[in-house]
Amino acid sequence: MVDIALLGCGGGMPIPERYLSSFLINYKGRKILLDCGEGTQVSMKILGWGFKTIDIICITHGHADHIMGLPGILLTIGNSGRTEPITIIGPKGIADIVNGLCVVAPYLPYELNIIANPEKPVKVQTSINCMNASVGEFHDLIISTLELEHSTNCLGYSFYFRRKPKFDVKSATKNEIPKMFWSRLQKNETVINQGKTYLPSVVLGKERTGIKLSFTTDTRPIPEIESFIKESDLFICEGTYGNGNDIEKAIKNKHMTFSEAAKLALKGEVQELLLTHFSPSMHIPEEYKDNAESIFKNTIIGFDRLVKTLSFKD
Amino acid sequence: MVDIALLGCGGGMPIPERYLSSFLINYKGRKILLDCGEGTQVSMKILGWGFKTIDIICITHGHADHIMGLPGILLTIGNSGRTEPITIIGPKGIADIVNGLCVVAPYLPYELNIIANPEKPVKVQTSINCMNASVGEFHDLIISTLELEHSTNCLGYSFYFRRKPKFDVKSATKNEIPKMFWSRLQKNETVINQGKTYLPSVVLGKERTGIKLSFTTDTRPIPEIESFIKESDLFICEGTYGNGNDIEKAIKNKHMTFSEAAKLALKGEVQELLLTHFSPSMHIPEEYKDNAESIFKNTIIGFDRLVKTLSFKD
Repeated sequence: MVDIALLGCGGGMPIPERYLSSFLINYKGRKILLDCGEGTQVSMKILGWGFKTIDIICITHGHADHIMGLPGILLTIGNSGRTEPITIIGPKGIADIVNGLCVVAPYLPYELNIIANPEKPVKVQTSINCMNASVGEFHDLIISTLELEHSTNCLGYSFYFRRKPKFDVKSATKNEIPKMFWSRLQKNETVINQGKTYLPSVVLGKERTGIKLSFTTDTRPIPEIESFIKESDLFICEGTYGNGNDIEKAIKNKHMTFSEAAKLALKGEVQELLLTHFSPSMHIPEEYKDNAESIFKNTIIGFDRLVKTLSFKD
Repeated sequence: MVDIALLGCGGGMPIPERYLSSFLINYKGRKILLDCGEGTQVSMKILGWGFKTIDIICITHGHADHIMGLPGILLTIGNSGRTEPITIIGPKGIADIVNGLCVVAPYLPYELNIIANPEKPVKVQTSINCMNASVGEFHDLIISTLELEHSTNCLGYSFYFRRKPKFDVKSATKNEIPKMFWSRLQKNETVINQGKTYLPSVVLGKERTGIKLSFTTDTRPIPEIESFIKESDLFICEGTYGNGNDIEKAIKNKHMTFSEAAKLALKGEVQELLLTHFSPSMHIPEEYKDNAESIFKNTIIGFDRLVKTLSFKD
């Protein structure tokens, strides 16, 4: 199970009912923050999911409406008593941006591990105490990135939460594997005991379908997005403009209309589309819902502090 | 008349009912922003006083809760169509801080004129189109600063809005000054016409009492504040802790309790004290009002978007 919360669905400038771009993922009690626009902390405070357990922060790009809440939240996480490092992933140049902003937060009681435009997917292993980015063989989460088409370096993100294979009790019994090793084998560990080697492959079935979440803002609807978001359970996409008449603005400012986002959702064969990053000039995004829904039925118009739970299938 | 609005009364981290340190002054339709913590834009949007007419931004210090809204508001001002320069006043080091933060707002359609820790009071002349900082002889506003005692370079501000002298009609008539020059003389201009010189001093009386506003956050209650705020019409002061039992925290973190702020107000012989910058750990600041009021009667406990009008006397 993965819990998600849209913390801020606004683009450009914050308005009373829409804080700026921010999205929170809660997995096994650990958290990933995606973007950190102004208002992120307020939404998090209202939600009450806690600050200390944020292990990874993914930044799409260095525009103010996606990152200005970062120094404040890093300080708040520091005040929560955290001392474990935090991983920040972002586009090319993210280290300079974070260092520039952190002029107002020069002393943090933990390290920042900054990964700029990762060449390969980042593998993450989640435990009760942390999410450990960049680990090797065993991992329960894969974070992939895609370079988007915006007016500055911008990354899309996809998160694949792997599902544990079923434990095959019959095979374990047949192979006379002592019960005391079952839980370690289930965690994919190889156990060596009194000269005997017990391989997890003996008792673990095939990998089952995990949960895929993808997130693209800000960008034009480039074709690469279609395969990147392929079969996502939830596709969170920018819909800066609801009205199709704003297509020229969308092209000029490197954003999307609702219908462009819906076409991506359709081609990407995703389960559900969640629209976000609304222009402050669009007063009631819900009024334009039909522009997306007529193309892709399972469309949700985002709002601040929308919360959802994504469950593993079967 | 001077209109003021407390945009954010929170300290440390923003919470739903308290955005971070920010205060707005509206004088003759032009605006001065004091501090720009997270949430400033949202409060301004609710107030509806407009962004384009912000001419001067005074920053007390470079802690995140006082400045993280700055790049966002500079961008919004840019989007409002402004091209005239904006003056930013701040403590020593302010230029590095502003430049660091502006990594996310590299292109602004106007210049920033940054004044770090001004040695002398900044004189300002207000017209319908702008507030012109650092002008010479004629000015209608004087901005003074005081170095406070906080954990980083921090400035207190006082604003003295000068009141025009009365125009002496009798003297103008007696001296046969043509009526067509009266308004220019009233604006303190010297008029030369057909070899004759008309001096404003002939028709203008003594300067009348203006409006004084002073603002000190974050700081310990150093004695220098008493003369700095002397006889202010409104003294806006930090009251991070309402409960007197938090005095040790106040000393350690270089802040004040309500009663310490009230003692300053009393010694400074101000008209009114407005408390702000409340710790997020203090749920209902109003509960501690008596701790200030028992020392200084005219105490107001601040809240977001509190609005007041200060009028010239007589």
